[in-house]
Amino acid sequence: MVVKSQIKLIKSLLQKKYRNQHSLFVVEGVKTVKELLKSDIQCYQVYSTDPSLFSADESTVQQITEKELNQMSNLKTPNKVLGIFRIPETKTIDFSNWVIALDGVSDPGNLGTIIRLCDWFGIRNLLCSPNTVDCYNPKVLQATMGSISRINIVYDNLPKILKDAKVLICGTFMDGESCYQQKFNNTGILVMGNEANGVSKEIEALCSQRISIPHFGNSTTESLNVATAAAIFLSEIRRG
Amino acid sequence: MVVKSQIKLIKSLLQKKYRNQHSLFVVEGVKTVKELLKSDIQCYQVYSTDPSLFSADESTVQQITEKELNQMSNLKTPNKVLGIFRIPETKTIDFSNWVIALDGVSDPGNLGTIIRLCDWFGIRNLLCSPNTVDCYNPKVLQATMGSISRINIVYDNLPKILKDAKVLICGTFMDGESCYQQKFNNTGILVMGNEANGVSKEIEALCSQRISIPHFGNSTTESLNVATAAAIFLSEIRRG
Repeated sequence: MVVKSQIKLIKSLLQKKYRNQHSLFVVEGVKTVKELLKSDIQCYQVYSTDPSLFSADESTVQQITEKELNQMSNLKTPNKVLGIFRIPETKTIDFSNWVIALDGVSDPGNLGTIIRLCDWFGIRNLLCSPNTVDCYNPKVLQATMGSISRINIVYDNLPKILKDAKVLICGTFMDGESCYQQKFNNTGILVMGNEANGVSKEIEALCSQRISIPHFGNSTTESLNVATAAAIFLSEIRRG
Repeated sequence: MVVKSQIKLIKSLLQKKYRNQHSLFVVEGVKTVKELLKSDIQCYQVYSTDPSLFSADESTVQQITEKELNQMSNLKTPNKVLGIFRIPETKTIDFSNWVIALDGVSDPGNLGTIIRLCDWFGIRNLLCSPNTVDCYNPKVLQATMGSISRINIVYDNLPKILKDAKVLICGTFMDGESCYQQKFNNTGILVMGNEANGVSKEIEALCSQRISIPHFGNSTTESLNVATAAAIFLSEIRRG
């Protein structure tokens, strides 16, 4: 039996304001909830229509009805489980390996995909400007597939941090040098900009290197999606 | 003044069955409609709340009211224009350059992103299994950003075409050889599989090469999204 105040809390967590107020976020789907239960992220409560999906040591899972899940879910087709987790404290950014900096990425699917890419390519630190979409937004979490538990994501004053950083700042621009011609070292900050406007002027002025992805054929495609561009840049940084 | 039968036609084109029956598809948004008007794709009708956005030589644009646009649009926030275009006839696949083959890609956003990537990387031919999502699905078109007019997209019997093709068939698998270690020639077929199940057994048996994207760090991410993986493979094929 789920009380009304619990459903109200879960619904309020759709909004960033309440997520920050309670330091809680909501995740849906068996796979992602299981990944978070295995991680360092603290579990607050898991509700499931089928608690047998979870082993006893994973968590205390509260059994709920389909109807209750429908009431609390943000999905059209709820998927058996909804978990509430504590927003982890962020750690200081470690510049001894590559860091990705996002300057106003606004689409939740793009941020989720970039978090998953960071995880794949062993990027542990993701720095986001305050106007980048919130990483605990449900659509972001859906696209990360659980990777969010393994990346240190810090929202902070981008210009200030870039000014203080003692590593190469590598901005991505339409008119930069080919990323295929670069020799990437083991450290640096890769800056990716907003979907429509790219990297902001203030951040552009702080970039010591400007790179881009060459295009082939006589295409008139104006640009690649920021998440697919991130995939290619990260691949170039890591492939050696 | 838009008559009811026109709105009924437009609404019916949300379904693949009616798109194929009428050989028509619908596109929304100023940028994409303008791109299609510039292309070889034949225009059937353009409706806009602001025909002055289009030059006289672009097309005969029928002025409509906001209310009429809301009635015909499939978007929550309609964007000034809706165009109906004729589905172009597909050409024979040209194997003298790289071809991408999709084996059951089901997410419209992924297909749209892959079409845009093909355009960027100068891939002119995209071969899709019949169970791959329809490329004239509105969500696909939204993600292509107009690139669809520049790619020859053929839905056909994948096993049959692969058997007859005289070029390298390069499948993408989790346990393939590193794509960073390959020397790619100027021809080949890159096969990408379904989001959940990968390349099907039948197609797998036809692949002469198996490649994958190495992962870095101690990540436990199981896989990359098919569209971001396509970005990395296409970049590897073209970078030389």
